[in-house]
Parts: sequence; C-alpha cells; structure tokens
Amino acid sequence: MKEGIFFGEGMKFVKESYPDIYGAVVELNKVAYTGKVLDYKTQKLIAIGIIAATGDDLATEKQMRSGMNELNITKEEIVDSLRVVLLTSGMPAFTKAMKVLNKL
Amino acid sequence: MKEGIFFGEGMKFVKESYPDIYGAVVELNKVAYTGKVLDYKTQKLIAIGIIAATGDDLATEKQMRSGMNELNITKEEIVDSLRVVLLTSGMPAFTKAMKVLNKL
Amino acid sequence: MKEGIFFGEGMKFVKESYPDIYGAVVELNKVAYTGKVLDYKTQKLIAIGIIAATGDDLATEKQMRSGMNELNITKEEIVDSLRVVLLTSGMPAFTKAMKVLNKL
Amino acid sequence: MKEGIFFGEGMKFVKESYPDIYGAVVELNKVAYTGKVLDYKTQKLIAIGIIAATGDDLATEKQMRSGMNELNITKEEIVDSLRVVLLTSGMPAFTKAMKVLNKL
Amino acid sequence: MKEGIFFGEGMKFVKESYPDIYGAVVELNKVAYTGKVLDYKTQKLIAIGIIAATGDDLATEKQMRSGMNELNITKEEIVDSLRVVLLTSGMPAFTKAMKVLNKL
Amino acid sequence: MKEGIFFGEGMKFVKESYPDIYGAVVELNKVAYTGKVLDYKTQKLIAIGIIAATGDDLATEKQMRSGMNELNITKEEIVDSLRVVLLTSGMPAFTKAMKVLNKL
Repeated sequence: MKEGIFFGEGMKFVKESYPDIYGAVVELNKVAYTGKVLDYKTQKLIAIGIIAATGDDLATEKQMRSGMNELNITKEEIVDSLRVVLLTSGMPAFTKAMKVLNKL
Repeated sequence: MKEGIFFGEGMKFVKESYPDIYGAVVELNKVAYTGKVLDYKTQKLIAIGIIAATGDDLATEKQMRSGMNELNITKEEIVDSLRVVLLTSGMPAFTKAMKVLNKL
Repeated sequence: MKEGIFFGEGMKFVKESYPDIYGAVVELNKVAYTGKVLDYKTQKLIAIGIIAATGDDLATEKQMRSGMNELNITKEEIVDSLRVVLLTSGMPAFTKAMKVLNKL
Repeated sequence: MKEGIFFGEGMKFVKESYPDIYGAVVELNKVAYTGKVLDYKTQKLIAIGIIAATGDDLATEKQMRSGMNELNITKEEIVDSLRVVLLTSGMPAFTKAMKVLNKL
Repeated sequence: MKEGIFFGEGMKFVKESYPDIYGAVVELNKVAYTGKVLDYKTQKLIAIGIIAATGDDLATEKQMRSGMNELNITKEEIVDSLRVVLLTSGMPAFTKAMKVLNKL
Repeated sequence: MKEGIFFGEGMKFVKESYPDIYGAVVELNKVAYTGKVLDYKTQKLIAIGIIAATGDDLATEKQMRSGMNELNITKEEIVDSLRVVLLTSGMPAFTKAMKVLNKL
C-alpha cells in the first residue's frame, strides 16, 4: 500500500510524533489487508462499504480514492458495493456516498 | 435468494400483514444484490462486513448463515472480511463477530 | 409518565443510589416530552423511531411497550413509524423492530 | 413528494445512471411515507428525529428543509422532535441539530 | 464550566428561545460532571474519547478545545485517550481525531 | 493485562486459528493501553465510557468486569464515567449500562 495515498494528514502526525502507535497501525493494516483467501481488492470493496455505511463522507472519499488509485477499482464496482449500503444502512448513507462518488 | 433462509421472523410478519412494504423490500433486495460488475458472493461479503461492523451479533449471525448456506461462502472468506472490520471498526466489533463465526 | 412502566431496572438503581442523577433525568424527561406544539403521543412515536433505528431490540421493546401502555399507541401506528426506519436506517434495523413488535 | 426538493445531488446521479436503483428507491420512499394511520407530516417529523439523532448535520438540514418546504412543518414542531433527540441521543446530537435549525 | 467556551452556537439559541430545555441541560451538565470520585478532568477525557469514537470531527474539536481551555488538558493526555479510541473504534475515527488535534 | 480476563471467547478462537491477527491485536492493545501521561486505569475508564456509549451491554459488561478485576476500578468510579455517557449519548445507553453495573 502506498503510504502517501492511504495514510492522510492525521496519520502523518502519528508517524512523526508517536512511532509506537504508528508501528501498531502499520502492522494492523498489513494483517487486515492480507487475507488468506480474499484478494486485497475484494477487501478494499468491503472497507468502502463499511465506511460508507457510517455516513462519513470524508472518510468515504478517502477510501474510494485509495481503492481507485491503488487497486484500479472502478466506479461501477464501487456502485455495486454501495447497493449493499442502501439495503443494510438506509437511504441517507447511500445517497451521501453516491454524491461523493459522482464527484471523483 | 431463498426467502426461507434470508428473510427471518420479522420479515415473515411483514409479508403476511404488510404486502406493500414486503413488495418494496423484495424489490430493494433484488436491486441491491444485482450488481453490474460484482457478483452476488462479493456483495454478500460486503454485507457481512457492514453488519459485523455495527456490532449486532444476531444480525451478523443471520448474514453469515445466509452467506454460507446460499452461496457456499467459507469461514475463511468471512474471516478475511472481518479483518477489515478489525481495522475500520475496532476490536469489540471484531471479537464479537469472530465469536459468532466460531459457533457456526 | 408512569415511572413503573417507563423507568426500567437500571433507573430504579439510579433512583435509590444516585438521587442527583435521578433528579436530572426526571427533569430531562419532563422537558423532552413537554412539547410546545407536538403532543406526547407524537413525540413518543419519534422516540420509537429513533430507538428502533439504532437496532437495539431490548430498548426498542421497552419504548414500544411504554407507548402502548401509557398512550394507547397502536401496532399500526408503530408500523408507520418503522416504515421511516426502513427508509432511513436500512433493512436489518427495520426487520429487527418488526420482529419485536410482532411478539408484543 | 417533490423530487427536486427531497432528492439531492446524489440521487440525481442515481436517476441518470442507475435507473434500476432509482426505481427501487422511489418505490421504497412511497411505501415508507404512505402510512396506514399516521399522516405524512408525522412520519416526516419521525424522519427528522432519526436523522438528527445520528449527528449528521448535512442530512439533518436536508430533512428539515424538505419538511418545512413540502409540508409546512414549523420550527417549533422541529424543536419538539429534537427534544426527544436530546433525551434519547445526548447533548452533542441535540445541539448540532439546534444549530442547523437556527440557521434555516 | 465557562458557558462561552463549552456551550456553542446551538446552545445559545436554546438559551434564548427555550429556557425550559436550557435549564434541564445546565442541570444535566452539572450532574454529569460532578463525579463522586473522579475529578472533572478525568471525566472530560472520557467525554473526548466518547465523542472522538463517533467520528464527528466538529464535536471532537469542540470537546478538545473545551478541555484544553477550561482544564489545561494537554495534547499528550488527549493522545492517550485517543489510543483507546484506536483500539475500541477503529482507525478512521482515530486518524480523524488525530488530525483535529494536530491543528489545535 | 491478564489475557484470560480481557480476551474473551472470540479472541481465544483468533489466537488458536489466526496467529497473525492475534499478534497484531496484542500489539495494538499494548500500544493503546501504554499511555505516555495517563495511567492504565484512567484509560480503562475511557474505554468503559466509549463502549457503554455504543449501547452494547455484553461488551460493556466485559469492559467493566475487566476494569474491576484487573485494576480494582470501583463501581463508584464506573458510575462517574457513565455520568458522561448520559450527557453525551442519551438515556437509553446510560440506563442500560447502569443496569449492567448493578448486576456485577
């Protein structure tokens, strides 16, 4: 994973000032995205769905960008993961994520 | 999707007593799980991740069972989706979902 | 509001052991449910919707019972408030609340 | 419901690009807001309460505007629904919604 | 507690227009932050953790500022409370709060 | 931290079957609870507040037990952290946590 893309402003601050936390987060990221059977792209689509379901547009945008840049995830694939958000988490979270996606 | 598996007790009550709601939910389900590019199984893994992230063990169990029965999703695949839950949603949601999975 | 109905086990413990907290909660309840223009029943239906949207079945059951016992809210009125939950908060929260309602 | 008001930017994108999703959402909206016993206005006040409780100020503003424009819901009625938010969901969600309302 | 600092825009509107709600909130604040055994500063660190865990950056900033201004809570103490957020609530909530803190 | 107490059923399954995840979680726990300026007990009280605020009674009970057994946190200290939950997260989460505490 390219740090510059995935790790935003908050994480840069952590890296410089709290190396112990940074180390644990890097390790956590590696373990999280090193599936035994699912590939990184499928896991990233799961992450996009989970974050979009919380209704947090900034974090959703970051996840979508990271997925598109690092893994060539397409808008169409993201829409298919947001379909699940509509069903499981309701219309406000879904429309918010679609608005974010439309602007990317 | 096999109704008997996916649609639990609450939905049976809806079907019998509120056919208008039932119709909209069936339609919503169809649209949600009819991705243009992602297959049903990938979308189901996204659903499992989203529900597990909310920390709701009963709903998580229902999603896991439905994914295992309808789509032959393996425990290993579910663990790989829960790895993302650990990263995005914290340890309590992750351990709760792992406990549910361990009992299936 | 009849305390015996609305205030469950947790609140009885508060009343006996933490009278300062109890006093503030009673005051908060009074202010919350003394609308200037909406009646208590409408506000209770709002409360049922908010709690059901969180997916917490025990708290949802308590709110529904309290609304039915204190205010003669009907099952049909609760279903109409849960319709809004389906739209705003997704299918798992909705079906969970319908399951609770069906058993009352 | 006037689409132009209720359906924001995200939904316009859905309508143009994903007519199958759009169709399901329109149907869902109709079913959600066609109560058997509660009128649309009461249901809209429930929606405002549910969205405000999540602490999402943009979505809260959209709901409030839609309720005021389409249904002539008054600020006073919204305050009465936010009283319930204060009780059920705590002070940060309540004050955030009051701040939104004050600016409308 | 200095009102001017803790109570933001939304609360000023409440104070002027809804004195009954304002009274209940003041009382609630007093009871909440008058612990029997924990001091105000420890309780404020708990509040910062709870708000940061919800991923709401504006509310998190308000809590952090209030804690730093009223109680001389240090950035280092806030980081130690955000460590718990990382564990319990996941990386997005943690990094968002660290980004907020870094700008204060 | 005594593993037997803090790490419940779900984590035992992780330890046996997914040593890579287990390693990252142990590291995360260590980093989370090794504050630079706050002691472990204060951090644990923050964790109890965060978990109680989510309204998850099983996870809340686990956190309370762990705090009482490992760190001699008293019921009175927990109540003082739940006072903050009442203010920030509303009455249902507060009363649910008080009910859990009352039974310990």
